[in-house]
Amino acid sequence: MELIIYEMLYIIGLGLGDERDITLKGLDAVKKCEKVYIEAYTSLLSFGLSTDGLSTLEKLYGKPIILADREMVEEKVDNILLEARGSDVAFLVVGDPFGATTHTDLVVRAKTMMVDVKVVHNASVMNAIGICGLQLYRYGETVSIPFFTETWRPDSFYEKIERNRNLGLHTLCLLDIRVKEPTLESLCRGRKQYEPPRFMTINTAIDQLLEVEQKHGKSAYDEDTNCVGFARLGSEDQMIVAGTMRQLCTVNFGEPLHCLVIVGKTHPVEDEMLEFYKITTENPEQKGNEMLEFYKITTENPEQKGNGIA
Amino acid sequence: MELIIYEMLYIIGLGLGDERDITLKGLDAVKKCEKVYIEAYTSLLSFGLSTDGLSTLEKLYGKPIILADREMVEEKVDNILLEARGSDVAFLVVGDPFGATTHTDLVVRAKTMMVDVKVVHNASVMNAIGICGLQLYRYGETVSIPFFTETWRPDSFYEKIERNRNLGLHTLCLLDIRVKEPTLESLCRGRKQYEPPRFMTINTAIDQLLEVEQKHGKSAYDEDTNCVGFARLGSEDQMIVAGTMRQLCTVNFGEPLHCLVIVGKTHPVEDEMLEFYKITTENPEQKGNEMLEFYKITTENPEQKGNGIA
Repeated sequence: MELIIYEMLYIIGLGLGDERDITLKGLDAVKKCEKVYIEAYTSLLSFGLSTDGLSTLEKLYGKPIILADREMVEEKVDNILLEARGSDVAFLVVGDPFGATTHTDLVVRAKTMMVDVKVVHNASVMNAIGICGLQLYRYGETVSIPFFTETWRPDSFYEKIERNRNLGLHTLCLLDIRVKEPTLESLCRGRKQYEPPRFMTINTAIDQLLEVEQKHGKSAYDEDTNCVGFARLGSEDQMIVAGTMRQLCTVNFGEPLHCLVIVGKTHPVEDEMLEFYKITTENPEQKGNEMLEFYKITTENPEQKGNGIA
Repeated sequence: MELIIYEMLYIIGLGLGDERDITLKGLDAVKKCEKVYIEAYTSLLSFGLSTDGLSTLEKLYGKPIILADREMVEEKVDNILLEARGSDVAFLVVGDPFGATTHTDLVVRAKTMMVDVKVVHNASVMNAIGICGLQLYRYGETVSIPFFTETWRPDSFYEKIERNRNLGLHTLCLLDIRVKEPTLESLCRGRKQYEPPRFMTINTAIDQLLEVEQKHGKSAYDEDTNCVGFARLGSEDQMIVAGTMRQLCTVNFGEPLHCLVIVGKTHPVEDEMLEFYKITTENPEQKGNEMLEFYKITTENPEQKGNGIA
């Protein structure tokens, strides 16, 4: 009898919502892996993964999961890959493995070490934003909005947004996430201590965007520019609100993750769809909650849900 | 006791590969729906859905599926929506409900008829192309390449590609699909007969692209421009090959669906990843097959699979 050695790293997208957004194919793969890692960078925020969150996944998978923070991925990736040379190893990521947060480095490293890689795709923020009705093929280059500090206020996104706007294209703004940032104190003392995780809200993003517009003054956008704000996209309690920058600033979008789309030139069918998300009431927060109800996926206890919401 | 009436239309993304690319959430929803439709427009080609294909899905779901062609969706959508006012109805789409082929119309129509809509996201070509290593946020506007005829050779894509290339951005080219096109004869006689389904190959797309470049002569791209060809993206036998337009023209990518990315300015990590897909052998078809092996997801009979491919 021949001994067959597996060398397989599965990189599996979990989608955007909760543990039941994994595909059947992804679950099949997790179930046969000996070790299962999950990237902590976005999963902590978007899946709200505490010990409880991990337990939910562990219960579904029937095996323990190892939380792989950025440090572990950067420093110990070779160990993970060595494990994958003797057994099947799963690396779980929020969204799609090659969506907004990419794992290209991991694949390149794996291939260099002759470890075979299998990818299981899933939804990512890059395609799920299509739900607001703005056509994905009408987006220009995606931009990232980093947290401004007293001394560091990079604004290279401005030129890109300006370009997209001039072409009538929509712009997806990915908002900064800070997980496991070392404290200034810890950097000085050489002892590792971390800042609490932070994520950028839509409100902060708009503040920063308007500050940069004021600085450059090229009218790429202004307070009256139409946008769509997304919070917890793809999850049970997602919130999608369309309105001007000024309007969205007044909305409390709640828990992470947030992202923002700056609307370009729209087609009539895009307008029709956006209309459903528009702030029309005096109380935008309530409108947000209506939309939340509107798109909720109720898979459990459907009996508890009455008729549709207008 | 109260009678609760459901009015729910589930629009469920099936992902890109086979029946096991549905999410657990999507399957939960299908299982509780009384009627299940599947859009025929792309599913016929990408899932290779014959009667057999449907049977595979029907077996998994434990219920019959109704094939909804474009005609049915356009002409009988109100009937489908009326059904959704008395029971749960599922509408299955290949990829993500708001990916490359959008279903915004259906949602708008449903909401106008006060039918509640729930969306279950999945991977789409718009994010799964990330697997080739080109970063999704470095893409410009997406273009569509339509089949040229003797008299109709629209080339509005040219200007968009030129713009993306000037900005150093990658361009996703979606290639034409023709399903259930009425024959010229049938149009004349008023009796419905259809052309066999057609999909554009990467080779045809490149021929058309080069013809248009020759016509405009603005050097947006040429035969030496780097591209990535994708066939059956996300499925077991997907094929991804990187090379110049001239090289890709010699590759037989096989069965549908195909799409093409025109590479912009690359970062080193993008180059490293592209390297794995490059045509290096005398026999590009064989290279394609290697890549195919490389990314295959083998969920059945893992025992039959040996060591990784370099």
